[in-house]
Amino acid sequence: MTVLAIDIGGTKFAAAVIDPQGAILARSEQPVGSDPTATLTALIEAMTRPGLAAVGIGSAGPLQAGAGTVSPVNIPAWRDFPLVEVVAGLLPGLPVALAGDAQCMALGEWWKGGYERSSRALLGIVVSTGIGGGLILDGRPYTGPTGNAGHIGHIVVDPAGDPCPCGATGCLETLASGPNMVRWAQARGWQGHDARQLAADANTGEPVALATFRRSAQALTAGIHTTATLLDVDDVVIGGGVAAAGPLLLTPLRQAVVAQAGLDFAQRVRISLTSLGREAGLFGAAALAYAHPALEPVPH
Amino acid sequence: MTVLAIDIGGTKFAAAVIDPQGAILARSEQPVGSDPTATLTALIEAMTRPGLAAVGIGSAGPLQAGAGTVSPVNIPAWRDFPLVEVVAGLLPGLPVALAGDAQCMALGEWWKGGYERSSRALLGIVVSTGIGGGLILDGRPYTGPTGNAGHIGHIVVDPAGDPCPCGATGCLETLASGPNMVRWAQARGWQGHDARQLAADANTGEPVALATFRRSAQALTAGIHTTATLLDVDDVVIGGGVAAAGPLLLTPLRQAVVAQAGLDFAQRVRISLTSLGREAGLFGAAALAYAHPALEPVPH
Repeated sequence: MTVLAIDIGGTKFAAAVIDPQGAILARSEQPVGSDPTATLTALIEAMTRPGLAAVGIGSAGPLQAGAGTVSPVNIPAWRDFPLVEVVAGLLPGLPVALAGDAQCMALGEWWKGGYERSSRALLGIVVSTGIGGGLILDGRPYTGPTGNAGHIGHIVVDPAGDPCPCGATGCLETLASGPNMVRWAQARGWQGHDARQLAADANTGEPVALATFRRSAQALTAGIHTTATLLDVDDVVIGGGVAAAGPLLLTPLRQAVVAQAGLDFAQRVRISLTSLGREAGLFGAAALAYAHPALEPVPH
Repeated sequence: MTVLAIDIGGTKFAAAVIDPQGAILARSEQPVGSDPTATLTALIEAMTRPGLAAVGIGSAGPLQAGAGTVSPVNIPAWRDFPLVEVVAGLLPGLPVALAGDAQCMALGEWWKGGYERSSRALLGIVVSTGIGGGLILDGRPYTGPTGNAGHIGHIVVDPAGDPCPCGATGCLETLASGPNMVRWAQARGWQGHDARQLAADANTGEPVALATFRRSAQALTAGIHTTATLLDVDDVVIGGGVAAAGPLLLTPLRQAVVAQAGLDFAQRVRISLTSLGREAGLFGAAALAYAHPALEPVPH
């Protein structure tokens, strides 16, 4: 038995055939292109083979989990796009599971990143163009009644902060996403253009870049502290482009979370950077597929 | 079959015999007194009867759920007190389940407050001397790996705020607990002495009392917004002494949560005041007892 894992990103689609132990047996990736439905169809056709038992999809949001539809911000051609129905039509008879991309990242990290045995409650954070999150609680993905749990990028960390496109003010994303870090640094005279360069400059000690990472780490600290206090999480795993900053981000973050938290149980949270990188989402989509109720043995 | 529900508060202990439909068949309450262990023993002896299948306890914290010990802030005689062991010794052979008092309040509201059918995810908040919280997620109590999930009173809502005894700064509790509301109002010339009086004065339009409730509602809004965004909750139920303020608290809170939240799913959260009052904790303790794994039929 194998499953098909699909990762719907804003700029790329990836798919992989993954076995129950988490081995990737085949893998393909395509830029979204001008016709995302055609790209998806080609990707699925290339990955279709005997023995597939289910499909799991992690998609950029927003998505409507109950309806099986997605409206990824960076794919304007898809608005309320019936992703589950389309995929089920391409692979008749296979059950299809859908969750958010960051929810799949969290599940993938938990399953294949070495947390399954040591962690009962894990928060995954993807810091890139936006900031997404996913939760494993009591050893299971927790996606919420409407499928939207884990939106850590839109919790308010600075009530006096900037307006966020979501409609709220001072969301974590306004302070710590890649583009917002770059914008903040540029407004203070930094000459670079992207988060990767910002991280490189901070690592050489460039003061504005350093200050930007400190500010971002402070905002992430607030989000992690809140989640640890509310959910008693064992682990936080950070992925996405900004995670490439490595110890520059991780070291102050670990120190600040301990310093900010008062309660013992909220101080104990372990914070790590992803060890799986972009593959985490595919592993999570596969785990989602393997957990599909249709695959479980019928009780007698 | 019935269960024994026990509610360990800072000033009173209560116990009740509750049937599977949630009917209270017997009930007793005692002030903690100078010897809390003797009070507990007398209460349990008065409630012991044939047919008891399990015991559920909701206790003021902190508690160490795994060890079955409690250290309620207002009961100095109990530090790392082996509550589960002591109760099991008084009722030999009965399985004993322990959770936090606010966790039991949330579970009790969910079971007997009319939420079980309409809500998959519920946050219960107890606003009194402190601010506690409990979570029902995916229709089950979520207490976290160390038993401490739901500590909404200690999420930071004002990073520039007052230090909290927990060690953090600007916790929800520093702004919205009964005693902290009273202190804030007194510092601005209000002449009263407790939260009940503060609510009464606010209801007559006394400006400082009104401002105090607005400030408290604002802080609670931040906590509810954060929880709704992170956990996609359907319902928030508020209990505790401050809930007696009624519409004075509830109306601005409902408006503010919709105004503050950007994302649709975080705006849809329903906010209510407890309809069960102090009984919610006993119902929750009973539900905890009925859910004890030892009561489940052994699979063949």
